Amino acid sequence: MTEKLKMGMVGGGKDAFIGAVHRMAAALDSQIELKAGALSSTPEKARASGLELGLAENRAYGSWEEMLDGELALPEGERIDFVSVVTPNHMHFPVAHAFASAGFNVVSDKPLVHTSEQADALIEAVEKTGVVFAVTYNYSGYPMVKEAKHLVASGQLGTIRKVIVEYNQGWLASEVANKQADWRTDPERSGVAGAVGDIGSHAEQLVSYVTGLELDALCADLTAFVSGRQLDDDGNLLLRFDGGARGVLIASQISAGEENGLRLRVYGERGGLEWFQETPTELFVKLSGEPVQVRRPNNPYLSDAAKNASRIPAGHPEAFLEAFANVYRGAAAAMRARKEGGQVPENALDFPTVYDGARGVHFIEKTVESSRSSDKWTDARWRRP
Amino acid sequence: MTEKLKMGMVGGGKDAFIGAVHRMAAALDSQIELKAGALSSTPEKARASGLELGLAENRAYGSWEEMLDGELALPEGERIDFVSVVTPNHMHFPVAHAFASAGFNVVSDKPLVHTSEQADALIEAVEKTGVVFAVTYNYSGYPMVKEAKHLVASGQLGTIRKVIVEYNQGWLASEVANKQADWRTDPERSGVAGAVGDIGSHAEQLVSYVTGLELDALCADLTAFVSGRQLDDDGNLLLRFDGGARGVLIASQISAGEENGLRLRVYGERGGLEWFQETPTELFVKLSGEPVQVRRPNNPYLSDAAKNASRIPAGHPEAFLEAFANVYRGAAAAMRARKEGGQVPENALDFPTVYDGARGVHFIEKTVESSRSSDKWTDARWRRP
Amino acid sequence: MTEKLKMGMVGGGKDAFIGAVHRMAAALDSQIELKAGALSSTPEKARASGLELGLAENRAYGSWEEMLDGELALPEGERIDFVSVVTPNHMHFPVAHAFASAGFNVVSDKPLVHTSEQADALIEAVEKTGVVFAVTYNYSGYPMVKEAKHLVASGQLGTIRKVIVEYNQGWLASEVANKQADWRTDPERSGVAGAVGDIGSHAEQLVSYVTGLELDALCADLTAFVSGRQLDDDGNLLLRFDGGARGVLIASQISAGEENGLRLRVYGERGGLEWFQETPTELFVKLSGEPVQVRRPNNPYLSDAAKNASRIPAGHPEAFLEAFANVYRGAAAAMRARKEGGQVPENALDFPTVYDGARGVHFIEKTVESSRSSDKWTDARWRRP
Amino acid sequence: MTEKLKMGMVGGGKDAFIGAVHRMAAALDSQIELKAGALSSTPEKARASGLELGLAENRAYGSWEEMLDGELALPEGERIDFVSVVTPNHMHFPVAHAFASAGFNVVSDKPLVHTSEQADALIEAVEKTGVVFAVTYNYSGYPMVKEAKHLVASGQLGTIRKVIVEYNQGWLASEVANKQADWRTDPERSGVAGAVGDIGSHAEQLVSYVTGLELDALCADLTAFVSGRQLDDDGNLLLRFDGGARGVLIASQISAGEENGLRLRVYGERGGLEWFQETPTELFVKLSGEPVQVRRPNNPYLSDAAKNASRIPAGHPEAFLEAFANVYRGAAAAMRARKEGGQVPENALDFPTVYDGARGVHFIEKTVESSRSSDKWTDARWRRP
Repeated sequence: MTEKLKMGMVGGGKDAFIGAVHRMAAALDSQIELKAGALSSTPEKARASGLELGLAENRAYGSWEEMLDGELALPEGERIDFVSVVTPNHMHFPVAHAFASAGFNVVSDKPLVHTSEQADALIEAVEKTGVVFAVTYNYSGYPMVKEAKHLVASGQLGTIRKVIVEYNQGWLASEVANKQADWRTDPERSGVAGAVGDIGSHAEQLVSYVTGLELDALCADLTAFVSGRQLDDDGNLLLRFDGGARGVLIASQISAGEENGLRLRVYGERGGLEWFQETPTELFVKLSGEPVQVRRPNNPYLSDAAKNASRIPAGHPEAFLEAFANVYRGAAAAMRARKEGGQVPENALDFPTVYDGARGVHFIEKTVESSRSSDKWTDARWRRP
Repeated sequence: MTEKLKMGMVGGGKDAFIGAVHRMAAALDSQIELKAGALSSTPEKARASGLELGLAENRAYGSWEEMLDGELALPEGERIDFVSVVTPNHMHFPVAHAFASAGFNVVSDKPLVHTSEQADALIEAVEKTGVVFAVTYNYSGYPMVKEAKHLVASGQLGTIRKVIVEYNQGWLASEVANKQADWRTDPERSGVAGAVGDIGSHAEQLVSYVTGLELDALCADLTAFVSGRQLDDDGNLLLRFDGGARGVLIASQISAGEENGLRLRVYGERGGLEWFQETPTELFVKLSGEPVQVRRPNNPYLSDAAKNASRIPAGHPEAFLEAFANVYRGAAAAMRARKEGGQVPENALDFPTVYDGARGVHFIEKTVESSRSSDKWTDARWRRP
Repeated sequence: MTEKLKMGMVGGGKDAFIGAVHRMAAALDSQIELKAGALSSTPEKARASGLELGLAENRAYGSWEEMLDGELALPEGERIDFVSVVTPNHMHFPVAHAFASAGFNVVSDKPLVHTSEQADALIEAVEKTGVVFAVTYNYSGYPMVKEAKHLVASGQLGTIRKVIVEYNQGWLASEVANKQADWRTDPERSGVAGAVGDIGSHAEQLVSYVTGLELDALCADLTAFVSGRQLDDDGNLLLRFDGGARGVLIASQISAGEENGLRLRVYGERGGLEWFQETPTELFVKLSGEPVQVRRPNNPYLSDAAKNASRIPAGHPEAFLEAFANVYRGAAAAMRARKEGGQVPENALDFPTVYDGARGVHFIEKTVESSRSSDKWTDARWRRP
Repeated sequence: MTEKLKMGMVGGGKDAFIGAVHRMAAALDSQIELKAGALSSTPEKARASGLELGLAENRAYGSWEEMLDGELALPEGERIDFVSVVTPNHMHFPVAHAFASAGFNVVSDKPLVHTSEQADALIEAVEKTGVVFAVTYNYSGYPMVKEAKHLVASGQLGTIRKVIVEYNQGWLASEVANKQADWRTDPERSGVAGAVGDIGSHAEQLVSYVTGLELDALCADLTAFVSGRQLDDDGNLLLRFDGGARGVLIASQISAGEENGLRLRVYGERGGLEWFQETPTELFVKLSGEPVQVRRPNNPYLSDAAKNASRIPAGHPEAFLEAFANVYRGAAAAMRARKEGGQVPENALDFPTVYDGARGVHFIEKTVESSRSSDKWTDARWRRP
């Protein structure tokens, strides 16, 4: 029997949204158990949240620093195997950097950090310690997204010419007063961008994951529609990729009436594909001169990467949490491999890493730069440090 | 902190489909942990499967009888809180009856048992011991199905006149040689019906759950299309309900090209509704003279029952496993209430019980009876014993 | 240049619905012009309607008898080439029979006539005079319906096992007081059946057209839900076909909230297809083990029959009126061929004839007979006289 | 009885696509008849095409100049009431200008002309003679587009903030050798833009029609992907409107696999709407906090403008040709009013005019200008001369 991996969590206490998502994603496959936590920025609340979630008294920590010290003080076999960082954005860097530097594997929410300097520092720490570092760009965990990637990579669409990616939400169309809206519209905690940082970076990563295209330049128009808002709540971008492909990226949180409308379209010389997050079990493949195909999870005609990302038979829909769990499953396989010194199967390593996170931070910075410029094009090439 | 409920599982070892589904559904909310199991009908395989799933050596039992004895021998606080019965159908009765009679709560897969006599015996045992007994008619765990039920119950469609329910699959369109097809087409293990028992009973329960209508009579045409098959692989029924409503029920496993097409339509005097399991986040509501409505999970306009059945925000789709987990969540709340003697909130008790299971068995029997008859109508009223 | 065919119309005056449809369908391709009419059962109204539509004074007739005499009195080259019969059902027989017997080609609305006796008499007249006789089962004029027929005929689905056809409307869910509802619910003018005659016969023809299957037996449950209604407003049928295929046919006009929901599904050994009239440009083809295909009009991969039924490029949707016009176009080609003694291309003759009309009448009679019987099965074989 | 309007046509002979569309659109309602034509740029072909379409010998002209002279030579009551200009783009100006100047009403295909100077000259001619001048921006003829316009105008979405309009086609993804591709990719005949002129101008007009927003500035990235192509086959634009709304416009003819994908989304403070040309009978209305609405043609809840644009009952889909015919119907009503000196009902005048055409030409010019500029924003305000 394989022992479960031990997870520690920073952030994600009461009223948090994404912490609970991480816990469900981690629990789904019965391969990971929550063993420690510093679940809030307020020590009492952190401890209370920990106990409520069933943590042992001595591992319901009051702060992430306490948790780091406490875990290091435990015998190696009892320590957490990894930390999940699910705080507001501004805490990603200090927490992830400290744990990675101390040799703990990390799962971090996105966007990775606030600045490219932080991203580079994080990469340095990860490369030095060799820890597994996953970033929960969860949308690339969907089976049909993996099939889309396969279709492009295998050349079935021909050379890619055009990408349209949109992420339309409406929940910030009015002033919203809740914990979520609060920190996500606050530059101190959210970073230099609003919608573009929160969801635009998902869109950027989805394009990168599916097409493998590298951004060359971008032209951005960011707007804050709701009065008093300090960060963009709507962003529209023209994209140019290495090799000549063109693109459009839309990220909006004032598209009133929309829920979580992440949609990707990719067109190559011989055909196109379309995927929409709200009905994630359908991948439309449109090859020139052929009937439109609707590909669906766990069918025999799919690529292995897509098939491996399903847990139950075709027609039994899996959705957001299962895709999220696929990121955890990939990261967990890598952690076990690191732990046991063994070889991890290539396809299990299909999860976003610190490099994807760094590229996302760079994208956000360049978008904000372009938005302030009167020049049409802003260079947006990212180079792995 | 609330301690997790302890689950024992009978069936669900290697190569089984539904056992893994039950485990994921039980794990999702971190409220239940697998502590014991008799996971196969072969003792060695049972024990090996148990160890593989991380059970303690002494609780990886070789048979369900061993498990019953073993658990009863433990101090009360250490025993499993409930047993999940996920064996082929023919074992549901002996296992569920023995555990319920011994005072253990039960979660059983469907159809409940093979005969109405067994169903009545099970009801008697449950009523005597007062155990919680849930049947995993999982489709009624979907948020939009709960909204559908609310729409009917609140009279928004007017008096119901017409129901169309279909469950179209294609996986048995050819001869299939695998473990699943094997026992599901074998009368010894599956019962008197094939498609009608396996999926028709889901359709019947969905109608009953959403509309509250009681069957009055039915007219069935069952066919076994694939040569050599002993049980029906296609069934078509006309339905008459108390109060005059009419219906059509279709259950087929030879509808080649279909995956898991459970679809419900209900029409009342003032409007209709439609729900399709493969895109479960959309409930279409068609009120006469008004725009078609598409209702979606976790929106403010929904009924409480529907809202409570979601875990994450609107636009973040939840699907089959989450609906399944809702059955477990409801049953778990009832088990805790029984354990602690406390009051369980009414809405938490929204899960199918032994009575729903018994009604399903009666439906299967009457369908087979009708299919053999040259009379148009066969009485199909079910009376709670 | 080809001269336009001259059309006479019986019925279809002010307030009529279907007459205007016939006129638009006939006009679309600029191959037919309205030259004479007896547009109402009231002579003054008939004449006034004719003048309003631009008929010459002497050809705006007061009755169909006048029109028959008047046209026969004209020199042969000036006479109408055909009559369109668009009256309430009870007038189909006398008008069509008189014109066919006098050697005029006929386009008749459906259902053809009230009784099988009338149908046989009409066939006799048509066979005697050799006139072209088309019945506007317009739904078989859709390109994607023609593609469906091709898929079945070419064996791509394998032997057909199962058919589900539904025609769900809601406009008679309440008492309705208008001209349309009036005659369609009156046995004197509508015939022995209500919903089954009005729309069930479309469903029957669609199945026959697409699959070529012959009905063997049926089992019907007809209901009149709205109080005071003399004819069925809801009908549900089990079907058995020659060769062993099974089917379900639903025809309802009390499915509140539905508009004109004609849907066909056909399953063979190797796959299925689905078509829905309200989004008629999509034909779903589901072959076992392959991605779902969405076939769309005027694409290179379609059969010739489907391609020939489109007028404009792929992506420019054609719909109800164009499908209706395809019936006229086919009939017109046959009429020209008859007139000119030439050969008409086989594929132009793809329109429903008096035989299809007669089969439909027989289906309606057998459905009503079954509904009154306590036997499960009523023989429903139709034999061309 | 109302006499039919007499139409003359320039262009639209054999092998032409759009001429046949105009003829079907004009014929559908039996209010217009084709009486004269100069159907090709080659005199013999022009005359032959005319005869083939049933024109009288003396009105099957060899050139548009002949036709202008010929018609002016006829007694006033016999002359054509209007000319339809359906030539390649470069001939729109000379033909439309000559006929308008001579007092003939005009229906012209889009884009109106090649340059703003021509557009202004045309406006001047139209204002001088008072002729009716319609431009067949046919997509605004769809009932659900009219409903969309009504929703915005009546304030139901609140102040508009965001527009996304796309027109994705794939037919020019490869080199195409046919008459259509030929002139549409030739600057001499097509104008300064390719995809942006051909279909981008439809997108611009759709936004203008539905929202009433005036463009303030735009930022365009035009590309010619197919080697050797002189005009753009892909265009992506950021838009800024008067009043602060933002937008994205995409027009592409290399989106391989797409047919005729014109899609509009509009978001205001309180909700959004979405319409897609390939399934034109569905208008999605998404009001914040309410179920998504699907509005469909000819239902009682629609605006009058939407209801008046349907010919047949709800559920009987009308599509491209009927929408096109609505432009003709509106223009015809205006022509009759001009002829008879009577008042034309306001709602009948709901068709695009020479001013819409001129604004479209200006948009095309500014898009090309922006594409060549390294400045982010190009002023794009249009002022009616």
